[in-house]
Amino acid sequence: MHHAIGFIQDLAVIMAIAGVVTVLFHRLRQPVVLGYIAAGVIIGPYTPPFNLIHDEATIQTLGELGVVFLMFSLGLEFSLRKLFKVGATAFVAALSEIVLMIWVGYEIGRWFGWNSMDSLFLGAMLAISSTTIIVKALSELGMKGEHFAQIVFGILIVEDILAIAMLVLLSGIAQTGSVSAGVAVVTLGKLLLFMTVSLVVGILTVPRALNYVAKAKSDEMLLVTVLGFCFGFCLLVVKLDYSIALGAFLIGAIMAESKHLARIEHLIAPVRDMFSAIFFVTIGLLLNPTVLVDYAGPIAVITVAVVLGKIVSCGLGAFLAGKDGRTSMRVGMSVSQIGEFSFIIASLGLSLKVTSSFLYPIAVAVSALTTLFTPYLIRAADPLTLRLARAMPAPLANTFGLYSQWLASLAPAASGGATLFSMTRRIVVQIAVNLALVAAIFLSASYSAPFASQYLSRWLDTDNAQRVVLWGAALVIALPFLVAVYRKLESLALLLAEVSVDPAKAGRFTRAIRTAISGLIPIVAMFGVFLLVAALSGGILPPFGLMVGVLLCAALLLTVLWRWCVKIHATMQIALRETLEETREH
Amino acid sequence: MHHAIGFIQDLAVIMAIAGVVTVLFHRLRQPVVLGYIAAGVIIGPYTPPFNLIHDEATIQTLGELGVVFLMFSLGLEFSLRKLFKVGATAFVAALSEIVLMIWVGYEIGRWFGWNSMDSLFLGAMLAISSTTIIVKALSELGMKGEHFAQIVFGILIVEDILAIAMLVLLSGIAQTGSVSAGVAVVTLGKLLLFMTVSLVVGILTVPRALNYVAKAKSDEMLLVTVLGFCFGFCLLVVKLDYSIALGAFLIGAIMAESKHLARIEHLIAPVRDMFSAIFFVTIGLLLNPTVLVDYAGPIAVITVAVVLGKIVSCGLGAFLAGKDGRTSMRVGMSVSQIGEFSFIIASLGLSLKVTSSFLYPIAVAVSALTTLFTPYLIRAADPLTLRLARAMPAPLANTFGLYSQWLASLAPAASGGATLFSMTRRIVVQIAVNLALVAAIFLSASYSAPFASQYLSRWLDTDNAQRVVLWGAALVIALPFLVAVYRKLESLALLLAEVSVDPAKAGRFTRAIRTAISGLIPIVAMFGVFLLVAALSGGILPPFGLMVGVLLCAALLLTVLWRWCVKIHATMQIALRETLEETREH
Repeated sequence: MHHAIGFIQDLAVIMAIAGVVTVLFHRLRQPVVLGYIAAGVIIGPYTPPFNLIHDEATIQTLGELGVVFLMFSLGLEFSLRKLFKVGATAFVAALSEIVLMIWVGYEIGRWFGWNSMDSLFLGAMLAISSTTIIVKALSELGMKGEHFAQIVFGILIVEDILAIAMLVLLSGIAQTGSVSAGVAVVTLGKLLLFMTVSLVVGILTVPRALNYVAKAKSDEMLLVTVLGFCFGFCLLVVKLDYSIALGAFLIGAIMAESKHLARIEHLIAPVRDMFSAIFFVTIGLLLNPTVLVDYAGPIAVITVAVVLGKIVSCGLGAFLAGKDGRTSMRVGMSVSQIGEFSFIIASLGLSLKVTSSFLYPIAVAVSALTTLFTPYLIRAADPLTLRLARAMPAPLANTFGLYSQWLASLAPAASGGATLFSMTRRIVVQIAVNLALVAAIFLSASYSAPFASQYLSRWLDTDNAQRVVLWGAALVIALPFLVAVYRKLESLALLLAEVSVDPAKAGRFTRAIRTAISGLIPIVAMFGVFLLVAALSGGILPPFGLMVGVLLCAALLLTVLWRWCVKIHATMQIALRETLEETREH
Repeated sequence: MHHAIGFIQDLAVIMAIAGVVTVLFHRLRQPVVLGYIAAGVIIGPYTPPFNLIHDEATIQTLGELGVVFLMFSLGLEFSLRKLFKVGATAFVAALSEIVLMIWVGYEIGRWFGWNSMDSLFLGAMLAISSTTIIVKALSELGMKGEHFAQIVFGILIVEDILAIAMLVLLSGIAQTGSVSAGVAVVTLGKLLLFMTVSLVVGILTVPRALNYVAKAKSDEMLLVTVLGFCFGFCLLVVKLDYSIALGAFLIGAIMAESKHLARIEHLIAPVRDMFSAIFFVTIGLLLNPTVLVDYAGPIAVITVAVVLGKIVSCGLGAFLAGKDGRTSMRVGMSVSQIGEFSFIIASLGLSLKVTSSFLYPIAVAVSALTTLFTPYLIRAADPLTLRLARAMPAPLANTFGLYSQWLASLAPAASGGATLFSMTRRIVVQIAVNLALVAAIFLSASYSAPFASQYLSRWLDTDNAQRVVLWGAALVIALPFLVAVYRKLESLALLLAEVSVDPAKAGRFTRAIRTAISGLIPIVAMFGVFLLVAALSGGILPPFGLMVGVLLCAALLLTVLWRWCVKIHATMQIALRETLEETREH
C-alpha cells in the first residue's frame, strides 16, 4: 500500500487547496472554476514555495478523466428535441459566432506575427463559449427560465456539435499541415455518418439496457453499467481515431434518451465534480504566471476581441434570425466568454505538438478574464440596449424595424404548404437515417475484411469467394434498411407526383404522368443507392459476374423475406420513437 | 490527449466487464462483490484470452483509492452513540471472535507447515467479518430492523476499531519480526491517544467547517471540501506511519457527527462505488486460478474453520453477554464470513513483503466461498437453533438457563448506585479526554522541537533557553485542559469522599475526613499528571531550576487567567456536546 503515498499526497494537496480556494472564491462571488485554476497555479511548479505535485503523470491522467466526465455530462444535458425547438435561431447565431471568431482569432494571431497553426488554434479557441460558466452565471442571476436563456442554451448545443466537428478538422489539419475542401467534406461526412449511426444504434440499445439494469434498484449496478457504456464507447471512438471528448459527448447524448436520466445525472454528478476539479487544477498546474506578464499585450487584445466579437456576432446572428433587439443583446452578452472547450483545444494543440507553448496560458488568462466579466455583462445588457436605442440615428432604427417586419411576414402560416413541407422533410430524414445505416454496414464490412479473411480462409481459398461471402452478408444485414429506403422513396415519389403535376395543365394525362413519376423515381434512386453502396464497399466488391449472382440471390431472398424485412424495420422504428417519446413524458 | 488511451482502455475493459458480470451475478442472486472479483479474474493475466490491462500501476493506484473510500464510508456509518448503546454485548462477542479466529488461523497455518508470519497474517485475515456482505445480505433478507441485526452491527463497529489496532500491530510485527508486550502496549497506547485527540479536535473543527461550506448549497463545493479533508487527514496519518485505511476511517467517523451526514453520504456513494469496483476488480486481477487448484485443501479447511469458528466464537460471546440462544445463533451465523478487510490485510502483507504470495488467492477464495454461504447460513439459524435445543441433553440446557437467570439478576436496578456509577464514569471519561489532549500538546511540542529550534536559534542561543520557551509555550496552551482536569478531579474527589466515608463509622470526624480526602486527591493526582507531562516531554524538559521558574510563571499567569481558562474550556465542551447532539436530533 506504500507506493501510492506520493499519489495520495498529490490528491490531498489538490483537494485541500481546491477546497479552501473554492470557498474563498465563492465568498467573493466568483465562479468556482477560477478557484480551481488558481489552486493549480498555487500548487504548480512555477510559483513558490515549490512544486507540490509528485506524480504529475497520474494527476494529468485523472484530469483527462475530468474531460471525459465533463463532456459526458454535457451530452446528458444535450437533447435532440430541445435542438429541434430552438433550431434556426440557434444555428444562425452559433454559426455566425464561430465563423467570425475563428477569423478574428486567426487575424489577431497573424497580426502578432505568430505562425499560421498557432493563429488557427487561437481562432478555434475563441470560437466556443463556455456552457459551464453561462449556466452557472444565469442560474446565479435567476435568469435561467427567461426566453433569451432558452436561445442561449440552443446556441450552446449547436456550438457543441460544431465544436466537435472543429476538433476533428483541427486534428486533421494538425497532422497533414493543411486541409483541402474535399478532405474537409469527406471528414465531416464521415463524422456525420458516424454520429448518425451511433445515435440510432445507441438510442435503440443503450436506454433499453439501462432500463433493464435500473430495475434492480441498485445505484451501484446502474453506475457501473453507465461507466461501462461510457468508457467502452469512448474506447471505440478513440480506436476510430476520433477524440475521446466526442465519444463521451455522444454516449451522453444517447443516455439522455433513457427514462432514468435524472438518476444517472444524480449518480454521475459527484464523479464529474471530483474529476473536473482535478482537470481545472491541472490547467492551473500548466500555467506559468511569468508568461502572462510577458504576453500581457496579446491577452488584453484577445480579451477585448472575445467580448466585442461575441456580442456582435452572436447578437447580430440572433437579430438576423428574427429576435428583437433586447433579446439579441442579452444573447450576445451571455455568450461573451471562452471556457473549458478552449482548454481542450489548447491541450489538443499541445499534445499534437503543433502549437507553441505560450498559447495555453493565454487561453487560460483570457478565459479567466472573460469569465470574470460574464455576470456583469449579462446584467449590463438591458441598460446598454436602452442607451443604444436612444443613440441610434433614426434611419438605421427604421431599417432594423423594417427587417423585423419583413421576417415576420415570411413566417409560414399553418397552411397545407407547411404540412406538405414537414411531411417531405420527415420522409427525407428517414431516408437519410436508413441510408446512413446501410452505409455503415458496408463500411464496417470493408474495414473488417482483413480480419474476417483470416477466419474465412479456412473454408474459402479464393479471394473472390471471400468477397462474395462478405459482401453478401453485408447485403443481407442491410436488406431491412434497403427495403425501408425503397418504401420511403415510393411515398416521397407519390407526394412529389401529386404536387408537381398540375391537373389543369396535364389534363387527361395527369394520372399517367403521376404514375410514371411515382414509379420511376424510386427505381432511379435505388440505382443511385446501389452506386453509393458499391463505392463504399470498394474493398470487398466481388467481380461483376459474381456480384450479379449475389444480387439475384438477394432478390430471391427478398421475395421470400419482404414482409419480414418490413416488419423488423417497423419494430425498430417504433422502438426508436418510443424511447424518444418516453423521455418526453418524463 | 493521446498518452492516456491505454489507461482509458483499461477503465473501459474493467467497467464494461464489471457491468456485465455484475448484472449476471445480480440475476443469479449472488453478491455483486463476487461479480467484480470474477470480472478481475476474467480480465487478469492468468486467464485466457490474454492480459487486457496495460497500465496496471495506475489501476492499482485507483484500487487503493477504493480502499480509502470504502473505509471512509465505513467511518461515515460508524457512530460513537450507536457504539455506546450496544456496548458490552458487541465488545464481548467481537473480542472473543477475534481472539479465537487469530488463534485458529495461526494454528491452521502452522499445521500446514507455513512459516509463523504467514500463519499470523492468516489468523488476522480470518478475524474480521465483512460489513459490506452482512449489510447487503441482511437487507436482501429484510432482516435489517431485527434485534439481532443491531447486535451484529455493534459487533462490526467494535471489529472495525480492533481491526485498525490489528493493522497497526501487524505492521509493527512485520517490520521488527516480533512484538514484545511492552511495545504492544506502547503502540496501542499511542494509537488510542492519536484516535482520541483526532476525534476530539476533529469533531470540534470539521463539522463546523462543513456546516459553513454546506450553507452555499453547492454540492460541488461540499464534495471538494469533504475530499480535501479526507485526503488531507489521510496524508497526515500516513506521515505519522499509520495506515491510510485508519485515516480514512477516522475522518469518516469525524464527519459522521456533521449534521449534513446524509448529504455527504449521498455525494460520496457514487465515487466510492466507482473506486471500490476498481478495488475489487484489482483483487481479481491478482488472483491466479491455478493457485486455487493447488491449494484446494487449505482453502476447504480454512473455509470450514471460518464458518464454524465464527459461529461458535461470536454466538458464544453473545450468549455469555446475556443474549438468548436464538439471538446468539443468529448473530453467529450472520458474521460467518471474511471480506474486504481480509484483502486489506493480505495486501498489507504483500506490500511489506513478509507473506508468501499464495496467501492472497487463498484469502480471496475463502472470502468468495464464505460470502456465498452467508445468506443460506442466516436463513438456517432458526431451524438449527430448534434442532439444537431438541438435541441438547437436559442438564446442559438447565445450566444454560441458570446462567441466563444469573446474568439477569446481576443487571443493576435503576437505583442510586447506578446513577453514582454513571456520574463517576462520566467524570473519569472527561478527565481522560482532557489528559489525552494535554499529552498530545506536550508530545507535539517534543516532536516539533528540532524544527522549532531552527527558528528559535535566531533569537535564543542556548539550548536551555529554547527548552524553556518551548516547554513554557506547551504549558500555556495546555493550561485550559489542565485547569479542566483539576476541576474534574475536585468533583470526583468530592463524590468519592461522600461515598467512601460512612457517617455511621466516622462519627463527628465525617466532615473533617471528607474535607481532607476531597482536598488531597486532586493535589496528589495533579502531581501524577505533572510526572506524566514530564515523562512525555522529556526531550524539551528544561533543567530543574529553570523548570521551577517556568512553573511559577505559569502559576502566576493562572491566577490572572483562571476564569478565562475555565470559560474557554467550557465553550469547547459545549461545542463538542452540541455537535454530538445535533446529529441526534437529525
